[in-house]
Amino acid sequence: MPVNLLPPDPVDLHAVAGVRLGVAQAGVRKPGRDDLVLLSLVPGSTVAGVFTRNRFCAAPVQVCRDHLGAAEGIRALMINTGNANAGTGADGLGRARRTCSVLAALMKIAPQQVLPFSTGVIMETLPVDRIEAGLPAAIADLRPDHWARAARGIMTTDTVPKAASCQVQIAGRTVTVTGISKGAGMIRPNMATMLGFVATDAAIEPGLVQALVREAADASFNRITIDGDTSTNDSFILIATHQAGHPVITSLDSADGQALRNAVIDVSRRLAQAIVRDGEGATKFITVRVEGGANEEECRRVAYAIAHSPLVKTAFFASDPNLGRILAAVGYAGIDDLDQTLIDLYLDDVHVAHQGGRHPAYQEADGQRVMKRSEIIVRVLLHRGGASTTVWTCDLSHDYVSINADYRS
Amino acid sequence: MPVNLLPPDPVDLHAVAGVRLGVAQAGVRKPGRDDLVLLSLVPGSTVAGVFTRNRFCAAPVQVCRDHLGAAEGIRALMINTGNANAGTGADGLGRARRTCSVLAALMKIAPQQVLPFSTGVIMETLPVDRIEAGLPAAIADLRPDHWARAARGIMTTDTVPKAASCQVQIAGRTVTVTGISKGAGMIRPNMATMLGFVATDAAIEPGLVQALVREAADASFNRITIDGDTSTNDSFILIATHQAGHPVITSLDSADGQALRNAVIDVSRRLAQAIVRDGEGATKFITVRVEGGANEEECRRVAYAIAHSPLVKTAFFASDPNLGRILAAVGYAGIDDLDQTLIDLYLDDVHVAHQGGRHPAYQEADGQRVMKRSEIIVRVLLHRGGASTTVWTCDLSHDYVSINADYRS
Repeated sequence: MPVNLLPPDPVDLHAVAGVRLGVAQAGVRKPGRDDLVLLSLVPGSTVAGVFTRNRFCAAPVQVCRDHLGAAEGIRALMINTGNANAGTGADGLGRARRTCSVLAALMKIAPQQVLPFSTGVIMETLPVDRIEAGLPAAIADLRPDHWARAARGIMTTDTVPKAASCQVQIAGRTVTVTGISKGAGMIRPNMATMLGFVATDAAIEPGLVQALVREAADASFNRITIDGDTSTNDSFILIATHQAGHPVITSLDSADGQALRNAVIDVSRRLAQAIVRDGEGATKFITVRVEGGANEEECRRVAYAIAHSPLVKTAFFASDPNLGRILAAVGYAGIDDLDQTLIDLYLDDVHVAHQGGRHPAYQEADGQRVMKRSEIIVRVLLHRGGASTTVWTCDLSHDYVSINADYRS
Repeated sequence: MPVNLLPPDPVDLHAVAGVRLGVAQAGVRKPGRDDLVLLSLVPGSTVAGVFTRNRFCAAPVQVCRDHLGAAEGIRALMINTGNANAGTGADGLGRARRTCSVLAALMKIAPQQVLPFSTGVIMETLPVDRIEAGLPAAIADLRPDHWARAARGIMTTDTVPKAASCQVQIAGRTVTVTGISKGAGMIRPNMATMLGFVATDAAIEPGLVQALVREAADASFNRITIDGDTSTNDSFILIATHQAGHPVITSLDSADGQALRNAVIDVSRRLAQAIVRDGEGATKFITVRVEGGANEEECRRVAYAIAHSPLVKTAFFASDPNLGRILAAVGYAGIDDLDQTLIDLYLDDVHVAHQGGRHPAYQEADGQRVMKRSEIIVRVLLHRGGASTTVWTCDLSHDYVSINADYRS
């Protein structure tokens, strides 16, 4: 049961000039399901990405890095579910490249102009023949208004398709930002991946797109955690088609640049939060905010210590205001000179702990009232400086164990 | 259901000359249960300890550190369950000190000669009056052969008391090492603690005891993990009473020193492993061995990444040879220059992955066969150097969630 997350209404997903999307059933793992998604980009588009930091990165991630570094502009993105092509060695790399060549031949572009993405079972051989057989149908399906269809096509264990869209005015023109994502955590039958694709028709200096995707990732996908595991295939891509017809944005700090940046971050954040809301077994959406750190890095450590703690997460599942678990997580986050007698802790509006101990006015009934909510803000004040950060996570439920303990069959 | 762990047979627990143990019912949290344990030490004993690295350390931990730094030798250890006296600020510190003064008066020693330990609910006021009322009965109960009784007396969520003992010959004398421990993880109703107490009658230069306890901790309690959470009260104490009558050991590298060191590590390791075997909801005991690292620190990071991964742990619970999850954990362990194409992975005797991919001869049936066992060795070869390490953990089951999601009532 996703937490306050509904499937996107297709009418809310604005088309992005220069992007067409197509879906097909290639039978990568099982027949009869949409498992192949294409994005076709107008010539002159700029594409940039951030990828998993897992050293065991999958073959398609390696190919994406190569192709983004090549001189030719990216013209197509190809995503298959059912097989992650990870842990597959040199053979897997060859297969990822082959799918690019096949699509390139069909679209009359260079193989280096294709970015491949795979998600699904790992350590199994990618069935290039099936993908090859499915590509013509995906190409025939390409249309600008297929965002919702594509969001559904990249799902694995997701229970709800994830998409977001917004429009802003820049120099009198309407600029669109639209994106889709799919879930983190592990999938049944096997390893899953977090994928995010955001496209805009904004006209922007190509050199700025990499900075923008990095900033958007740091404000969205890099701030969520389901279970602390980092997949081998995680990828987040930003596409700029430059079709909106306004003067080219030459700085992200200009008024127009900031408008675009805010729109891209807004869409990316909604896509990232949707992944948490649909986290495996999630029953609650938790915002962890850490303030008053000496620097942002220590705020992140504290926030992730809380967000990763199985003890904290089971307490949220149980609606148990078991606050010692949160304080303990703050304590082991790795800040060597932390002064525990300074810490404040809030659950939503309830002041739970003050100066490292229970707040004199705190009543367990107040904590209990907050813990029963489906959306909860944990706020920790370190009183060490002016830095802060926020991460989003979900609780740890019986269903998480059931989903991930389920044998792959 | 603990994994291959039986309660200790009292006849296997050799008394340690110079140590007497007593247990009483103080009703710290609930009446009618053994919740107060004393260890009384002969004058001249040496005591050293290692404590939680959690910056939110509990009041008794702070008092222990103070008293171990004082000039007087430690003569008594006092452990209460039912209340951790953590997150209690200055008041909690005063209460921990008061219990030491009360016991000191009864035993006619100085308050600084007492080490206090508390485990149980956190952020609640320690009932000093009840402990004070219970101490005379604990003193009256002091006997050298009460190790099994004491092991039971310090239990919280543990389902089985934990004790271990061994004897070695040093210079023609029998030297005894005996210890008790209690579980990590969280307890119902609240936060638990890992406690370990090991005593020996070996004659050893007092200055060596601190080095020995550190080494023993690094080889035992510092190598186990249930859920990655570090309690505010974790403590491991080594006592040397010097009563065995052999020539004083002046170096841990001498033959006698090594015999003692091995005995202390053996007992400590059994006590630590017993905690994992009785981990909350544990159904399997997992040994994670990482070999071929450039240094021990990176081996530890890889081993803990595997041992902490909820995805790996649920796969063990499900007996699912979901090996990609293990490789993924290796990948995100934080070794920046890891070459994934070098990695080997074994499950017991089964060679699962080679050069970062599935081993050509690997059959899933072989992985399945190993995963059904109650004790499994995961072995990762990094091929980067000569360092190695081992950690022990358990799986993540439905019962873990149930135990920790249970409301404190």
